[in-house]
Formats: sequence, structure tokens, C-alpha cells
Amino acid sequence: MGACGDANALLAEIAEVGCDPERGGYTRPVFSPAELRLRTWFTTHATERGLDVETDRNGIMWAWWDPTPAHGEPAAEPGRRCDAIVTGSHLDSVPGGGNLDGPLGVASALAAVDLLRYRGVQPVRPLGIAVFPEEEGSRFGVACLGSRLLAGILDPEEVRGTTDDTGRTFAEVCADIGFDPDRIGADPARIASISAFVELHVEQGRGLADLGRPVALAGAILAHGRWHLRIEGRGDHAGATRMADRHDPVVVASAVIQSVRRHATGERDARGTVGRIKVVPGGTNVIASAVDLWIDVRHRAEEVVQRIVDEVRDDAIRAAEAEGCTVALTEQSFSPTVDFDANLRGAMQAVLPDAPVLDTGAGHDAGVLASVIPTGMLFVRNPTGASHTPAEHAEPADIAAGVEALTGVLAHLLTR
Amino acid sequence: MGACGDANALLAEIAEVGCDPERGGYTRPVFSPAELRLRTWFTTHATERGLDVETDRNGIMWAWWDPTPAHGEPAAEPGRRCDAIVTGSHLDSVPGGGNLDGPLGVASALAAVDLLRYRGVQPVRPLGIAVFPEEEGSRFGVACLGSRLLAGILDPEEVRGTTDDTGRTFAEVCADIGFDPDRIGADPARIASISAFVELHVEQGRGLADLGRPVALAGAILAHGRWHLRIEGRGDHAGATRMADRHDPVVVASAVIQSVRRHATGERDARGTVGRIKVVPGGTNVIASAVDLWIDVRHRAEEVVQRIVDEVRDDAIRAAEAEGCTVALTEQSFSPTVDFDANLRGAMQAVLPDAPVLDTGAGHDAGVLASVIPTGMLFVRNPTGASHTPAEHAEPADIAAGVEALTGVLAHLLTR
Repeated sequence: MGACGDANALLAEIAEVGCDPERGGYTRPVFSPAELRLRTWFTTHATERGLDVETDRNGIMWAWWDPTPAHGEPAAEPGRRCDAIVTGSHLDSVPGGGNLDGPLGVASALAAVDLLRYRGVQPVRPLGIAVFPEEEGSRFGVACLGSRLLAGILDPEEVRGTTDDTGRTFAEVCADIGFDPDRIGADPARIASISAFVELHVEQGRGLADLGRPVALAGAILAHGRWHLRIEGRGDHAGATRMADRHDPVVVASAVIQSVRRHATGERDARGTVGRIKVVPGGTNVIASAVDLWIDVRHRAEEVVQRIVDEVRDDAIRAAEAEGCTVALTEQSFSPTVDFDANLRGAMQAVLPDAPVLDTGAGHDAGVLASVIPTGMLFVRNPTGASHTPAEHAEPADIAAGVEALTGVLAHLLTR
Repeated sequence: MGACGDANALLAEIAEVGCDPERGGYTRPVFSPAELRLRTWFTTHATERGLDVETDRNGIMWAWWDPTPAHGEPAAEPGRRCDAIVTGSHLDSVPGGGNLDGPLGVASALAAVDLLRYRGVQPVRPLGIAVFPEEEGSRFGVACLGSRLLAGILDPEEVRGTTDDTGRTFAEVCADIGFDPDRIGADPARIASISAFVELHVEQGRGLADLGRPVALAGAILAHGRWHLRIEGRGDHAGATRMADRHDPVVVASAVIQSVRRHATGERDARGTVGRIKVVPGGTNVIASAVDLWIDVRHRAEEVVQRIVDEVRDDAIRAAEAEGCTVALTEQSFSPTVDFDANLRGAMQAVLPDAPVLDTGAGHDAGVLASVIPTGMLFVRNPTGASHTPAEHAEPADIAAGVEALTGVLAHLLTR
């Protein structure tokens, strides 16, 4: 067995899978050749470790380490597990992401199994490593698709019809890779069999770097919403139309971008971003007729998120009126604040008394599962603070510290 | 013969060709089925009028009315014409444009031939109606492609390799429609045979509407440049990255858009537009790593164009520094001011003493040909002032007034 207990070595094995020569970093959309290669890599390592690997009906992979039965007791039947402890993360990436967002949690879980065994830990309940599909939502537009299906939050029929950028539906893509899309959906029996889920993830900000610490526990996931703003003006000729006669939605969009920046900066620990803009028709010599613009806002307090959005809306209306344009703001999604399970965090703090507790603005499968399973997270220091880019980073020693922390937490949960 | 002398009736015949159900208006890219249908429509009407129709080696269609030879003189051989007067325009459109930008000049030319004959005008030199391909540059990205090839301003080899949005080269598209791309390029003999070119075009602004007049003469085409601005920042996670840690090129872009608006408004009769923006990677929950943005600036005085661009560049650098981003500005094209031929305008003013003289910010085949042939333009009132959109409009009475003006100008030029 290679790379025993060494998550850095495991990650080095996949350092060329899905390299993106254009954007830099990695592009590993769910069910793409790159993500499927990572799934095979995971299966190989899990099988080498004697784990029982299955893919459930939502495309989530599970690798099980079942407790050794006491003398005279029968072994637990696969599929009839109960009171399981689960860790894991995802293998898909955003376009041009890093090698850690997702794979670090999977590699650390495999390494933790090695260390638990090396140290002679005897679990009294099953340990599972889960790999969730489409956490990033970068192919089908729905983040945490696998965990949301598992938790029964998504309508399977809608998911089957969701299309990727090439216009292919989820169902068609599943059929291509030999996965049956007809059985996706809520799986309450599986959820009931899990007593705790702990996800380890690279930190997506500079919280730990500023504190000078390698590992943190998650406190909460910030409330998070996405809004779509449609600005309509009057398409016109860029050369012939006098400045005074224009109704240019791009000018309104510029005011909205600045409004998002101003109001998000004005609220402590808020986040506000415009990262996606579509100009219609989008010609250099054409005054646009419309702009579509998407706004992402997050804060621990839901009312602060709403306040920022209200202020941006007011600014957008004012800017549109001044330009003779119209605006329409639509909420596309809203996720309330997720407070991770306090009891589980208490148990984790018993093992890691010095680890700081950090909130995060990023969504995770752990955030989805927190509504149905006691859930916690561990974060590993990222000195650049960068995320969803190749600049994402963790020092090898910090990765080892993360594995050590996860191993300690799992040992505690598996044997108490 | 239908629609004799009536440009409105001629335009009504093509009111459904290339309708764009998505954008509204018309989408008639050069050499598309829609544009080819318009070419056939033109050929039919020209042939019905006994005009000699040819397509030259640059894909420009010409329909000739040759003077009746005097008793005893031989008829001019086709292709050996000299001292010709040419009018005409184009039939291709921008995506979602109107029915007048291009076709009005062609329909008016056919109607003018009818009126000249009805009034018994006896030309002493040939009259040609020209239809230029790819005036808009909306398929292959080079505006006035046909007239530039004719004038020898473009490298034929580069044109053959230019691709459309589907990745097909100009040469491949030509081959598809049975047009030989190997012979495109400068045609000095043809240029030498033309003594004047007059293009009639719908006005692309509100100049005539504000003056309350139906028809104007062109004074000049504004100097016009396009610049590409690349803004680079740091891609990051929209939820996890604190506002203070961001290097967001979208925020810099918003400052640039406002700078363009401010400086263009600050110079009398200038135009400044941002109509095309590309955000990289363009995810709602991703702080962009880069923004590409295109700037279009025009003014009668070339030094004013340059001053606006310099001011925008300075603002962009300042905004980028404040955000920890970088900017790089590149000139993509620059067309100096085109002053139309003063002698020809004088001759046109002798016929149309009350027509105002207006400058225009829009480029035209007439602007290209002005460098090699004495050239003039007539504009027809557009009450909305809108251009490159379905809102472009001209009243039927104004279209008739445009035909009348063109007929008068041609009668004068053909017989003097």
C-alpha cells in the first residue's frame, strides 16, 4: 500500500488529473473523465485498505470500515449498518480550482484510516468515507447536488432535467457513464444509519493564517443568497447616439457593482460579490439593450444579508431612473445560517482543545447534512486564503496536522 | 414591375426576411440564407429594370444602367465603363438590427432609377447600384469588409483566414455558397472607373429629428477607435474571502465604465461606450480573476478621442491600484476622421440647398471609399434616433423624401 497515513503523498498522486492548461489549476466537473479518474483512484485506495466500497443511488461513493464483531457475534450485514461515523468530502472542482478543495478531505480520510489502524484503534461502530458528487455545482448549477438529493431537499425529476453548459441533461450524462438516474432521491434509511458526519476542508479564507494556527473547528456557515438583477435599457449605435440620448444598462450595472462593494464592506464580516455579468447583445460598437448581473451576499445574520440586498436594490433603482433604464431583482436562492451541532463540536473540542472556532462563508455538503445529521467540520490553514483558484494552498505540515486532528476526532467518536 | 419608384413598397417585400424571433428585429449576417435571399431580391428587381447585374471578385454586387449610345456610337462594353456614378449600401445587418440600416440605401437606389426614367433623365455616364457585403462586421469581425477589400486596405490572405463565431473561415463560408475566395483583393481598375459614390442611409441619431428636417448631407465621419482593457485581479471564493482581502477586477471594471461615461460626456459631441464585457471565470459565487472590457470612443477631432482614452487609462490605473489589480490597455483599431469630398458636397447642395450638413459617429462603406473616390452621403430622419436595434425607424414620407433627394442628386451628377 502506497502513501500510508500520508495525505500529501495521496494528493501528489492526483496532481495531474484534470489539469486545466487554459485557466491554470484543475477543472474536474462531476462525471467528467477527470472526476471519474479520481473516483477510480479513491476506489483503488479504499479497496487496498479493505474497505467495502459502494456507490449509492445518488452517485455518492461510500467506503466502509466495519467494526470487528465481538466473539460469537455475526458481522454487520453491509447495508444494515447503524450508528455510523462518516467523514469525507468531494472530488469535483470549479473550473480552474485548486487540488485541495474537496480532495483534501477525501485524502485525509484515507490517511486517517491508516493512522487509526496503525495506532490499534478498535471501532465499536462503522466508519464511512463519503465522496459527494457535484458539490461545486459547476456542471449542473446546483451546489451540493448529491447531499441535497440524499437529504430529500431536491426534486429528483427536476434534477434529471437539469442541463449542463452543452445542453445535456443530468439524466443523459448519467446514462453515458452507466449510472441509473431513475433512482436518485431522498434516502432517509441511510441518513438514519449515520450518527455523525465530520468533513475536513481546506480553509477558504485567511482566518487561520491570521491566527497563526493550523487547524480550526467550524462554528457556522454564513447565511447566503444569490440574486439575479435584470437591467433593461435601449440598445443603440455606439457611434451615432449622443451621450445625452442614451439609456445604457452597462452604466447602471457599474453603479450596482459599486453599491454591492460599498454595502458589503459597510457591514462587519459580510461578503458581497458580483462575479457574473452578461451584456446583451455584447458588441463593442453597440450600446447594450440589457444586462444580466448576479449578486452573491453572505453574513452570519440573515437580517444583515437582507439589509445589504435591500440597500443594493434601492441604489439600483436610483441608478436605473437616472439613466432611463428599468431593473428587476429576483432571489434565486437563500440558505439560512447553518449552526453546526453543538454537542458534536463539544466532543471535537475535547480532542482539540486549542483549535479556534471559525465561521465560514462557503457552502459545503456538511452544511446541507447539518439539517438531518449531527455534523461538524475541520478547516486546514490556507496561507493565501485563496479559494476556487490555483492559488489555494496548504503547507504539507498543516495537511499532516489536519490528518492528525481528524484521526483524533474519529478515534474519539468511533470508540466512545 | 412592382413597387415602381416606391422604396417603402420595396422594403415591405423584405419585411420578413431574417426576422430574429429571439432578439426582435432582423439578423442577416453576410452570406447567411437571409442575406442571400436579399441578394436574390435585389437581383430580381435590378434585372426587371433592365440593369446589368454582376458580382465582382470581392462579393460586391453591381447593377448597371449604361447610357444610351448616341447615334452611330458603339455601346460601352460591360466592364469597360468609365466616369460612373455609383449609389447603394449593404444588405447585411447586426444581430437584432432594423430593416433600414443598409436596405434603405439599396431600395432607394432602385426607386431612384424608376424616377429618373419616369422623368426622362438621359444619363451621359453609367449609373451603378452597389451592394457591399459585411458592412456591419457582425459575422467576420471586420466592418466594411467588401469596400475595404475593393480599396486594397485589407490583406486578402488574412481575410480568407478570418473566422466567424462557429469557427468557420471566410474562405470556407465562401466556398459553401459557391463564391471563389481566391480572387478577393484590391481592384484599382474598378475604382478608377467611378467618379462619385453617394450612399443614402437612415440616420443613426436624432440630429434630423431635433432639426425637424427629413434629409441631411454628411459632413464627416467621426474619428473612431476601439480599445481592449484587460484587468487582472485574484480569483477567489465569494463566500470565504473577506472584503478587505479582495483583488476584484469587476470592481475596477465598474470604475472604468463610469470613467468612460464621465469623460465622453465631458467633451462636446464625443461618444464613449462600453458594450462588451467578459468576466473570467464568470461564476456567481466566484470573485473574478480577470475582466476583459472593450471601449469605443469617437469624436470629430482625433486628439479629443485620444484625450478621452488617456483619461480613462489614468482612471483605470488608479482604480486598479486601489484594488490591488493590474490593467493593460491595447488599441485594437483607430480610424481617423473622414471628411467627405467638398466638391461633391457642393454639387449635392446645389440640388438640396436646404439640407443640413451632419457629422456621423457611425462607420460606412462610404467612409472607406472616401479615401479613394469622391464620396458623399445622404441621411434620412430617424425619429427614435435608435440604431442597430428594432427601434430604428423612418416615416414613409421621409423615406420618399430621401428617394426624391437621391434622385435629384443622381440626375444632376449623371447629366452634368
